[in-house]
Amino acid sequence: MTLPSLTTGQIAELVNADLQGRDDVVIVRLSGLHEAVAGDLCFIRSSEFADQWKNSNASAALVTRDVEVTPRPDTTLLIVDDADRAMIMLLDRVAATQTKIQVGVHPTAIVDPSAVIAPDAYIGPHCVIGASVTIAARVQLLSRVCVGNECTIGEATILHPGVVLYDRTVIGERCLLHGNVVIGADGFGFRPDPSGTGLIKVPHIGHVDIGDDVEIGAGSCVDRGKFGATTIGTGTKIDNLVQIGHNCAIGAHCVICGHTGIGGSTTLGDGVTLGGKVGLPDNLTVGAGATLGGGSLAHEDIPPGEVWIGVPAQRARDAMACHAVFRKLPQLSRTVKKLAKQLENTS
Amino acid sequence: MTLPSLTTGQIAELVNADLQGRDDVVIVRLSGLHEAVAGDLCFIRSSEFADQWKNSNASAALVTRDVEVTPRPDTTLLIVDDADRAMIMLLDRVAATQTKIQVGVHPTAIVDPSAVIAPDAYIGPHCVIGASVTIAARVQLLSRVCVGNECTIGEATILHPGVVLYDRTVIGERCLLHGNVVIGADGFGFRPDPSGTGLIKVPHIGHVDIGDDVEIGAGSCVDRGKFGATTIGTGTKIDNLVQIGHNCAIGAHCVICGHTGIGGSTTLGDGVTLGGKVGLPDNLTVGAGATLGGGSLAHEDIPPGEVWIGVPAQRARDAMACHAVFRKLPQLSRTVKKLAKQLENTS
Amino acid sequence: MTLPSLTTGQIAELVNADLQGRDDVVIVRLSGLHEAVAGDLCFIRSSEFADQWKNSNASAALVTRDVEVTPRPDTTLLIVDDADRAMIMLLDRVAATQTKIQVGVHPTAIVDPSAVIAPDAYIGPHCVIGASVTIAARVQLLSRVCVGNECTIGEATILHPGVVLYDRTVIGERCLLHGNVVIGADGFGFRPDPSGTGLIKVPHIGHVDIGDDVEIGAGSCVDRGKFGATTIGTGTKIDNLVQIGHNCAIGAHCVICGHTGIGGSTTLGDGVTLGGKVGLPDNLTVGAGATLGGGSLAHEDIPPGEVWIGVPAQRARDAMACHAVFRKLPQLSRTVKKLAKQLENTS
Repeated sequence: MTLPSLTTGQIAELVNADLQGRDDVVIVRLSGLHEAVAGDLCFIRSSEFADQWKNSNASAALVTRDVEVTPRPDTTLLIVDDADRAMIMLLDRVAATQTKIQVGVHPTAIVDPSAVIAPDAYIGPHCVIGASVTIAARVQLLSRVCVGNECTIGEATILHPGVVLYDRTVIGERCLLHGNVVIGADGFGFRPDPSGTGLIKVPHIGHVDIGDDVEIGAGSCVDRGKFGATTIGTGTKIDNLVQIGHNCAIGAHCVICGHTGIGGSTTLGDGVTLGGKVGLPDNLTVGAGATLGGGSLAHEDIPPGEVWIGVPAQRARDAMACHAVFRKLPQLSRTVKKLAKQLENTS
Repeated sequence: MTLPSLTTGQIAELVNADLQGRDDVVIVRLSGLHEAVAGDLCFIRSSEFADQWKNSNASAALVTRDVEVTPRPDTTLLIVDDADRAMIMLLDRVAATQTKIQVGVHPTAIVDPSAVIAPDAYIGPHCVIGASVTIAARVQLLSRVCVGNECTIGEATILHPGVVLYDRTVIGERCLLHGNVVIGADGFGFRPDPSGTGLIKVPHIGHVDIGDDVEIGAGSCVDRGKFGATTIGTGTKIDNLVQIGHNCAIGAHCVICGHTGIGGSTTLGDGVTLGGKVGLPDNLTVGAGATLGGGSLAHEDIPPGEVWIGVPAQRARDAMACHAVFRKLPQLSRTVKKLAKQLENTS
Repeated sequence: MTLPSLTTGQIAELVNADLQGRDDVVIVRLSGLHEAVAGDLCFIRSSEFADQWKNSNASAALVTRDVEVTPRPDTTLLIVDDADRAMIMLLDRVAATQTKIQVGVHPTAIVDPSAVIAPDAYIGPHCVIGASVTIAARVQLLSRVCVGNECTIGEATILHPGVVLYDRTVIGERCLLHGNVVIGADGFGFRPDPSGTGLIKVPHIGHVDIGDDVEIGAGSCVDRGKFGATTIGTGTKIDNLVQIGHNCAIGAHCVICGHTGIGGSTTLGDGVTLGGKVGLPDNLTVGAGATLGGGSLAHEDIPPGEVWIGVPAQRARDAMACHAVFRKLPQLSRTVKKLAKQLENTS
């Protein structure tokens, strides 16, 4: 990634680093130690990276204070308490230069006259805004976002192109919804038709209520409640292509990785972590602070704070013990056969 | 969910209930027994719910006739044959008030002159309608739906924002396609290049043919046939983020849950149920009325009416027996070791 | 699929076939041997298909040269070296008649004045093109494609409706991105907040770089790099609803099937095949030419050229041996119990 050119001295000031070496080296790129060339800045947060530094062509490095790094001539070390955090500060600085805050309603947007839009919000090209919608200050609806009737969007929230909000969706402040996210589609509920053939749809008249500082990845879907709301707690981060069913109650500060699917009316406590491709059925509870490893399929409630993995999921320690034997099943089977034979000969 | 205010008397009439208690309580919301407040209506379909009723603040409840419920002062019980069905009737009534049937072609829609659109159909903002398209009466294309050339859409079908129909897609009557569904993209077919490097694309010149009363969830994809059609039978319900491959033949009244993926040319009989995250490879047959549990991966045909689960899938009874031992593998392994030692000492 | 009517003689010339039978039969459809009717052309690439031919109503068949087929009266056999390849040639011919190459910028497209668009490119209805974008010759942006700032799209690439490209995306020549694909959304990276509650977003300032001849299926997502690029190699084919994380390096000529998810900074060598629903975590390497079977979850690097399957994945031979015993676990458990009893009686 090309940076707006900064000198090592300017970067030291920006991230509050102790500078070892030249303060006038112009940095034009962030990169990994292996692929770095002159003009690049790298990150050293452990002794492993310190080793790679010896053969790197990078011009400078951000170094976590307690990692020992051998200086190379004409290069600069920027010593900080935490190289990762300094990197985030630097990325934030660059990201800020990349993001253009816009204001106003694009002439191709279709906005219902009853919608209330803050004067410093932005409604981009080909957006469609329904009746009785409220859009707060500094909201950014990039191009072709659809906002259904009676939706509310909190301050400084950003919706990327292709986002669809069904009627009555509520979104908090500073949220980030990525491309083609769909919020508020009908929950998946059907009952057998009393005639014996086919299915009757259970109408879903509820909505989705999303807290503050929530991020939802590209293509993910959150269905609305049957009645009442599907809720996503403040600070929760959801990856791409995730499905969250009707009437789920997702706690605050959860992390939900890609392709995870959560059935209807399931509850996650605060601070839950779900790995990629986790499956949770309907009507289940995952306790606060619990973790489900990637690919797990839970069939029962997960107690708070515990780590579970596997299909069906069990406590990680138990699952690993089972899997260790699973991988030796052919030997185990042979051993049993041998024992049976021995026993036959003995008796 | 806020209701258009109805009295308990009006609701009794609407769902044909026997009223016990006051008929003039104004109901403003449907809710669960735990979170209910005054003005809320709840549902009691089993003795478990009847227990919760005792400590609920709900003003009224729809009760399945054979469930015994202790009346509370100033509350109303509405006794019906089936509380679930009565709830659907009530939800339907509310849903009807939420849905605004629209008519006409929005001025920002781009419609090919050769398209034939029923006068009482609705083509919303920023829709794009291709050549030789036929759109029947009362069809609702909400905003920015793309309809490719030569598509046909049957009466009263609803397409939500962001739906994409590739050329020649056929959709029946009363279907419901949710946000960002994609119908008719190329099947995923490639052959090794005879040169030895890379792949040659197999062109897909077929189409997708969807029956009546089909529902397809947000973000789901159905690929078109190589030649001939990929078909979805009447009454089949598909959840969010499902993938159906080229030339699949999906029967009538199937239920396909979220994140399920079906490979090319696979056939589902009528009334098949697939749980969430099921994987079916190419060229497989699932018999009518069969069920595959959530997370299953089938490697062989599934006989009609059977329930299979697991990876690879096997009959549920067999799979559960295997899993029961799997969970005790560490003990089994220790037992075998002990036996081997005993036997060594014996001989 | 209805063909532009061609005689058997014309088809023989098109695919360079030896004609046995009449050259004046009019072919109007391609179909399978079972469902074929008069006027249909079928494909026979093995003796199994040759058997089906006997009872088929097809008018003609493309036949791989070394397959023995009994002629039927009034039908035509078209003998070729490879019926599959001849079929692709024929499908290509039909596909070419289906595809309309368009030129120009639709009046409803919003194009930033700084964008450079080749005169023979096509920008369809409701597309939005950002600043400093470069679009090469014969590119086809069908309706409502969003192209962020500073993107580059190579010659003859086709983007279907609903595609979203975030800023700085680079796409090569002759690529095909299907409906609602999202390229370049933020990678999923967060760090615990030093305050102890919640998460801090790691800004992603990189981009996505896609080679030539890449196909990406409907609804799939490729996240951009933290810094530096997420890369997709030339000729790689990606199915629907696939997720590729930030900073992945995907080799050339890979095949990645539906619902597969790849974590951040994972590397695939050239010619890797991933089945459907494969899960790869962060920071893993899959060697060139390796294959991961459908539903596999890898926990370690996969060596080049090897075939791995399972959860967690292991070499296919080992995994199959383990699974074979798994399916007999109930018997194995009973045998061990019996042995223990026998041994007890013996001692």
